[in-house]
Amino acid sequence: MDKPYIKNYIDQNKDRFLDELFELLRIPSISGSRDNKEDIRDAAAFIVEKLKEAGVDKAELCETAGNPIVYGEKIVDKSLPTIVVYGHYDVQPVDPLNLWNSPPFEPVIKDDKIYARGSADDKGQLYMHVKAFEILNKNGQIPCNVKFMIEGEEEVGSPNLAIFIKENKEKLAGDVILISDTSMLSNENPSITTGLKGLAYLEVELTGSNHDLHSGTYGGAVANPINVLSKMIASMTDENNRIMIPGFYDKVVELSDEERAKIATAPFDEEEYKKELDVEELAGEKGYTILEQLGIRPTFDVNGIWGGYTGEGAKTVLPSKAHAKISMRLVPDQDSEEIARIFTEHFKAIAPKSMKVKVIPHHGGQPAVTPIDSVAYKTAEKAYEKSFGKTPIPMRDGGSIPIVALFEKELGLQSVLMGLGLDSDAIHSPNESYGLFNYFIGIETIVYFHQYFLEMNK
Amino acid sequence: MDKPYIKNYIDQNKDRFLDELFELLRIPSISGSRDNKEDIRDAAAFIVEKLKEAGVDKAELCETAGNPIVYGEKIVDKSLPTIVVYGHYDVQPVDPLNLWNSPPFEPVIKDDKIYARGSADDKGQLYMHVKAFEILNKNGQIPCNVKFMIEGEEEVGSPNLAIFIKENKEKLAGDVILISDTSMLSNENPSITTGLKGLAYLEVELTGSNHDLHSGTYGGAVANPINVLSKMIASMTDENNRIMIPGFYDKVVELSDEERAKIATAPFDEEEYKKELDVEELAGEKGYTILEQLGIRPTFDVNGIWGGYTGEGAKTVLPSKAHAKISMRLVPDQDSEEIARIFTEHFKAIAPKSMKVKVIPHHGGQPAVTPIDSVAYKTAEKAYEKSFGKTPIPMRDGGSIPIVALFEKELGLQSVLMGLGLDSDAIHSPNESYGLFNYFIGIETIVYFHQYFLEMNK
Repeated sequence: MDKPYIKNYIDQNKDRFLDELFELLRIPSISGSRDNKEDIRDAAAFIVEKLKEAGVDKAELCETAGNPIVYGEKIVDKSLPTIVVYGHYDVQPVDPLNLWNSPPFEPVIKDDKIYARGSADDKGQLYMHVKAFEILNKNGQIPCNVKFMIEGEEEVGSPNLAIFIKENKEKLAGDVILISDTSMLSNENPSITTGLKGLAYLEVELTGSNHDLHSGTYGGAVANPINVLSKMIASMTDENNRIMIPGFYDKVVELSDEERAKIATAPFDEEEYKKELDVEELAGEKGYTILEQLGIRPTFDVNGIWGGYTGEGAKTVLPSKAHAKISMRLVPDQDSEEIARIFTEHFKAIAPKSMKVKVIPHHGGQPAVTPIDSVAYKTAEKAYEKSFGKTPIPMRDGGSIPIVALFEKELGLQSVLMGLGLDSDAIHSPNESYGLFNYFIGIETIVYFHQYFLEMNK
Repeated sequence: MDKPYIKNYIDQNKDRFLDELFELLRIPSISGSRDNKEDIRDAAAFIVEKLKEAGVDKAELCETAGNPIVYGEKIVDKSLPTIVVYGHYDVQPVDPLNLWNSPPFEPVIKDDKIYARGSADDKGQLYMHVKAFEILNKNGQIPCNVKFMIEGEEEVGSPNLAIFIKENKEKLAGDVILISDTSMLSNENPSITTGLKGLAYLEVELTGSNHDLHSGTYGGAVANPINVLSKMIASMTDENNRIMIPGFYDKVVELSDEERAKIATAPFDEEEYKKELDVEELAGEKGYTILEQLGIRPTFDVNGIWGGYTGEGAKTVLPSKAHAKISMRLVPDQDSEEIARIFTEHFKAIAPKSMKVKVIPHHGGQPAVTPIDSVAYKTAEKAYEKSFGKTPIPMRDGGSIPIVALFEKELGLQSVLMGLGLDSDAIHSPNESYGLFNYFIGIETIVYFHQYFLEMNK
């Protein structure tokens, strides 16, 4: 099966490939909401059906304590290498809804992009694998065994995936994990993500007085939890944007000059970057380039904050409580649980006596670095060279896919992060999109990967 | 009309006095909400009707650009002194609704307190004046002329009251303004508020990137508006809780040692105060006692903050925007507009280039101090002595009733703040309440005021 044949097949089935994806995108499978449990099951069932139509031997819905995991497989010959595909059918919440230009679950094409929640993260990208498999199967030339594992809780920290993997090690045995859930530098400069940050995500709550007070009657004497929380958050980073939690940097691996030089070769236009975000100034950690800040340095971000009166107009309340959701992105060799622990200790230690403190850990994940000298990585490189006509650049990424570390630990498998998205896709934001170019070249590239993986393993 | 007669009348009409108040409390006249415009009119109409029933010569609804002002009068004889009563029939919003033990607009009596939104602030207190007038009228012994001015926008800063007053100076001419919208030290230690803080209330908005970003993809390089807002708010006060806005204290009148000594004589139990609020530590400005912090020192409180993801679970968003509502309570001779201006200038000056800044002023008000050597104050003192059997303590209060300064400026009238509430009434909070004792002794005290005011003016 050669390149013209594959491209032809994609061309002839373009509309159907889009129609099917649109059907999946219309299902509001938000894992972070309690109201979408049925949609979650609908999305999982849809993928089972489409895997069957694409030609797997079996596809099934595996129940977990949370949302079901879709498993499918095509075993051509046990002696052949096995590619395990991972993806997720759940999506992020959609608020603030009023900032969407079109409804998040009514996909539309505009300027050659598919606009919908989940278009890039991750429905559009996981569906490329289903369609690539269809092409291989239709042609009767499936070069390697394939296993699909598509979960429904990635956006809430994959709480049940580890259990599933531990209980199904044999079922999931393979030679490589293929994941398309990241982005690349640009369509002109394809890249493959080789490092992922870890994550520690916590929620904090400060309680001052036992009920909301009138700020006139009590203000000036009784501590205000929002004032205090602001001070506590402010103290977490210094004027150089260094994180001030004691011990935070202890295990951070500093890169060699050579490694830093390699990062510096990636094309990056700071002015263009700022223009796209409409910011006059960036604000990363001093002493590191922007690509380093993004790729190899840990971060401290308040993802949400709330307290007191947030409605229309003015209310002179001295609130009883203030809350924040705080996450830290981690780099090798920081440990997610250890960072969550030292954050908690530090946060409690710096709280004044006027406050009661609660710290609730949300999900976390370990940082991961994937080797670029593996057979799997070299296979991917070759596949990109064929589809894009360019060697992909290996890139460290700021995002976290905690399961990459999990797969290595539990299944002993390296992952290849064949993400075809772009940073401008606005994942997790209003108006998420995924390029038509990316969807179709992704399908093509994945087909090549399957073909080359057999060759490279010979 | 002597004390036993008055107490008797109140006793015999107790149930009806409560029923009528409950009817008023059932009307959700929230001025800060767009959904309660009809309720606002219903509450105003209810008061017009009850004033007529109580025996005024005329009572009417005066339209303004906002909510109507209720005006009523009983002119006995133009040569007699005139008491102008001010109150407000609008109430604060009720959120967080889930913290109410009973529905806010279904008044109930529990432990000798009336629980309902507006029970203390200000429906319960303004209605004492209506019932006191009924008693005087029923007895045919109305000692002074009376004018009622009950507005419906106090909780949103009285935006139309100044215009009404300027346009009706003759109608509102009188000798004293009587206002029951404050609280006293305790039922055992009645006090009269002699100083009120001013207010400057502003809303701030920071915008970083032009849309919400994925914190993994952009975190570490792009400034996070919540992180930045926390730092900006934190910088507004120092470790001694001094406010750091340049020029903020320039016009603050420092009290003499004598005045401070007088404040120190007020009974105040810090341990009891902390216990009631369930806080281990207070956190006011260093160098001042708690009563001073509450009464004579300006404050800086964040009344509300919001940004990013505030729903259930975790979302790794690097938000585009962060917001806060910030208010400062002011003391003589600070000027509300000037403080709003220097806050705005300072806030914009300290914002980093990575942020776009918006500052929106909400309502403000001037601080006020009422003299304690006036005929009106001495009349009130005598009235309390008769009802409570104790001389009331003059107290400076942290609350703001900007109209007190307005009345003095426009009508040349001093106010007497005969507030009968308690700090524990939880006004502006869930489970607002007003004591039955306070309601009935308030009515009694007001009757005495009317009687003595004539004598004292002779």
